[in-house]
Amino acid sequence: MDLKLKKYFKTQFLKNNGSFIDLPVLDGVKISSSSAKLYKKKNRKDLCLFYFEDGVNHAAVFTKSKVFAECIKWNKKPKTKKIKVLFVNTKNANALTGKQGFNSLRIIRKEISKKLNIKDKECYFASTGVIGEKFPIQKIRKAIPKLIEKNKVSSAESWLDAAKAIMTTDTIPKLSTNSFFLNKKKINIAGIAKGSGMIFPNMGTMLGFIFTDLNISNQLLKLALKNNLDKTFNAVSVDGDTSTNDMVLLFSTERAKNKKITNIKTKEFKLFQSKLHQVMLSLAKQITIDGEGASKFIEISVTGAQNDRDAKQIAFSIANSQLFKTAIAGEDPNWGRILMAIGKSNSSINVNKIDLKLGNQLVFKHGNISKSYKEKKASKFMKGIKIKIFINLNLGKSEFKAYTCDLTHKYISINADYRN
Amino acid sequence: MDLKLKKYFKTQFLKNNGSFIDLPVLDGVKISSSSAKLYKKKNRKDLCLFYFEDGVNHAAVFTKSKVFAECIKWNKKPKTKKIKVLFVNTKNANALTGKQGFNSLRIIRKEISKKLNIKDKECYFASTGVIGEKFPIQKIRKAIPKLIEKNKVSSAESWLDAAKAIMTTDTIPKLSTNSFFLNKKKINIAGIAKGSGMIFPNMGTMLGFIFTDLNISNQLLKLALKNNLDKTFNAVSVDGDTSTNDMVLLFSTERAKNKKITNIKTKEFKLFQSKLHQVMLSLAKQITIDGEGASKFIEISVTGAQNDRDAKQIAFSIANSQLFKTAIAGEDPNWGRILMAIGKSNSSINVNKIDLKLGNQLVFKHGNISKSYKEKKASKFMKGIKIKIFINLNLGKSEFKAYTCDLTHKYISINADYRN
Repeated sequence: MDLKLKKYFKTQFLKNNGSFIDLPVLDGVKISSSSAKLYKKKNRKDLCLFYFEDGVNHAAVFTKSKVFAECIKWNKKPKTKKIKVLFVNTKNANALTGKQGFNSLRIIRKEISKKLNIKDKECYFASTGVIGEKFPIQKIRKAIPKLIEKNKVSSAESWLDAAKAIMTTDTIPKLSTNSFFLNKKKINIAGIAKGSGMIFPNMGTMLGFIFTDLNISNQLLKLALKNNLDKTFNAVSVDGDTSTNDMVLLFSTERAKNKKITNIKTKEFKLFQSKLHQVMLSLAKQITIDGEGASKFIEISVTGAQNDRDAKQIAFSIANSQLFKTAIAGEDPNWGRILMAIGKSNSSINVNKIDLKLGNQLVFKHGNISKSYKEKKASKFMKGIKIKIFINLNLGKSEFKAYTCDLTHKYISINADYRN
Repeated sequence: MDLKLKKYFKTQFLKNNGSFIDLPVLDGVKISSSSAKLYKKKNRKDLCLFYFEDGVNHAAVFTKSKVFAECIKWNKKPKTKKIKVLFVNTKNANALTGKQGFNSLRIIRKEISKKLNIKDKECYFASTGVIGEKFPIQKIRKAIPKLIEKNKVSSAESWLDAAKAIMTTDTIPKLSTNSFFLNKKKINIAGIAKGSGMIFPNMGTMLGFIFTDLNISNQLLKLALKNNLDKTFNAVSVDGDTSTNDMVLLFSTERAKNKKITNIKTKEFKLFQSKLHQVMLSLAKQITIDGEGASKFIEISVTGAQNDRDAKQIAFSIANSQLFKTAIAGEDPNWGRILMAIGKSNSSINVNKIDLKLGNQLVFKHGNISKSYKEKKASKFMKGIKIKIFINLNLGKSEFKAYTCDLTHKYISINADYRN
C-alpha cells in the first residue's frame, strides 16, 4: 500500500486521531499473542491463541482449492458442538507438508492440553505464510507455555496484538467491529483478518476470524456466515491467485442476554445479518486496499447481467486482468482494456448494449465511444485513490460488485523476493 | 525481453551470424510496407499490403472474444473462394470504434481498388494497437497509393520488412519458414507473426500470417490450420489477457506443381501438417519469448491428466498465475505456488498422486516434499533462461504443454504507460 492509499485507508478504517479502532471486550474470549521466533525480526509475534473457556458456537468456511493446507484438513474433520481453541501461526502455511505438518497440529494440541485440557475435536487451527516448507513444530512447541500464561480476557489491546500477530505481507492490521441492540441487550461483533497476496478467495479470505456474543442457534450462525460471503470476502481479488489456507471462522459466545435466535424469518436475525455483513465487508475491503504493492482501490460494479454467474464472471474478468490493473497503476484511462476483459469472460454480452462509466463519466454506449467522453477529464479521474467503474450490460437484472487493487512495480518486488 | 533472453532467442530463431532467417520467394505473393505516420517515430512502418494477383486459397481463425475488432467483423463476412488482398495496419486496433471503424475498411478497399480492382469479399483486414481510439483513416488513405506502387513479388527483404511493420510492443520481428518435397516438387511455407502483450489467444495469436505455395483443397487447408492451433498459438500465454484482434490466416498460392492434395488420409497431407506445425509452433514460441518484459521462457508440461480439458486448464492455471510468474522472475524455486495454481484450477486432481519436477529434479511426490529435493540445486536451476516444469497427475493419459514467460517490473512499466 503506497502512502496516498494508506492515508485513504486511515480515513476509512481508523479513528480520527489515527489510532486503530477499539474492539470490544467479549466475555468468554481469551486472547494472547507471542513470538516463537519464526521470523528473523526480533519480537515479531507469530503465534496467537484464542481460548474459549466455556466453549463457543461456531461456523466455518474454507478454501475451495483442491490443494489445501494441513490446518484446513484438520478443521474439516468433525468438531464438537462447542469449540474451545483457535490456534494461529504465521510464517509457515503448513501446506504441502504432508504427515509432518498434520502431526505437528496434534503435538500443539497436546502441548496446550497440559494446561487447558482440550480435545482434538475442540480445536481449530489456522496457518499462513510460505507453502511447502517443513512446519517449524519445535520452535512453536517451546513457545506454547508462555502463550498460555499470557492468555487473558479480550481487550482492545489484545485484539490489536492478535490482528498484528497474524499479518504476513500485510502492512497494516485489519480490525472491524459493530454493535446493535436486541430488546435493550447490547450485541457485539468483533472481527480481525489478514491477507495481502494470493488473494482471490473462493470461500474465505486468507484468514478472517469473527466473534460475537449473540445468543443464536448453530444453524443460523452458519447461515449468516454463508449468506454474507459472496458479497464480502468472495468479492475481492488482489492477484487472482487462490490460497491453500483461506478460511473464515465465526464464533458466538452466546453470553449476550438476548432471547436465543432460532428463526430465520425474524427481524432479529435479519438485523444480525446486516451488522455482520458490515464487519465482513469492512475486513474484505481492508484486505484489498492492503493488497501487495497497491496504490489504488478499485470498485467494479456490473449491473444488468442476465444471471448472477455472468455478473460475477465479468466483474472478476476485469478485476483479474493484468493489463487493466497495470493501466490503473499508470493512471491511464485505457478503457479499451475493460471491454477486452468483458469480451474474454465467456459470459452473455452484446457490445452494442454495454454502457461503461469511469466514475460518473460515460465512456462507451451503443457500441461507440460516447460523444460526451473527454479523455482529459478521465485522466484526471484516474489520478484519484478510489477508482469506481460501472458497467451496465442492459441484458437483465443481475448484478455483482468486485473489489480489487492495481498491479504495481511493488507487487513484483514483494513477490519475486517473497521468501528472502 | 531482457538481454539474456534475447541472446537465447537468437540462438533459437536467428541465423548463426545473428541476422534474421530468409523467408522464400513465393510466386503470387506481392508484399509492400510503408508508413502512414501513425507513430510519432519517423519512418516507422505501420502499413503492410499483401497482394495476390491470381487470388489465393485461404483459411482463417479469429479471436473467440465477444468483444472483437471491426477487422474481425469484416473478415467473418462471406468471402470469395480466392482472396486477393490482406491489408494490415498497426498503432490502432480498430476495436470499439463502431461504424467509423467499419466504414474505414470500406474506404481502404475502395482506395486500393482504384489501382488493383478488388471487391469487398476478396479482402482480409488485420489491425493491432490501441483499443477504443478513433481509426486514423485519413492518414492511412493518403498512404495507400505509395504502398501499391512499392508492391513487389515477395523476397527475403520484403518479408522481413512486413514482419517489422506489424510489430507494436514487440522488440523483435518474428519469422519462420519450412520446406519439403512432394514428388520432387519443392513446397515452401513462410510465416510471420506479431504479439507481445494481451496474449492468451483463444483461437490465434494477435496476428499470424502463414503462406504456402502448396496445391491443396480449401477444405484441407482449413483443417490443417485448425488441427495445429491447439498445441501452437493456443498453447501460449503472456498475461492471460485475450485480444480483441487475434487472428491467424493461412494462404496457399497453389503454384507448387504438386498433385493437388484432396484426401485427409494421404501421407502428403500428414507431411504438410507436420511442417506447418513446426512453423506455427516456432512463431508461437517467439511471441512468448518476446512477451512484454520477459526475462525467462517457461515450458509447462502436464501429463497424466484424466482428460484434455483438465491438462490444459492446469497448465494455464500455472502459466497465468501472477504469483508463479513473479517467483520465476525472482529466480525463486517457490514450487508451492505451482501446487497452489494446480489446486485452484477446478480440475480433477489428487495431491497425493502428483509428481512435480523442476527441470530434472523431483520436488514433490506422494503428497510430500521429495527426500532428494535440494533447494540449492533448484535455486541454481532457476537462474537459467529456459525453465521447464513437469507435472504428472498420475490419473490418466491426457497431456498438454503450455508456453509462457515471467512477470517482471518491465511488464508493469510497459503497460502502465502503454499509450504515451
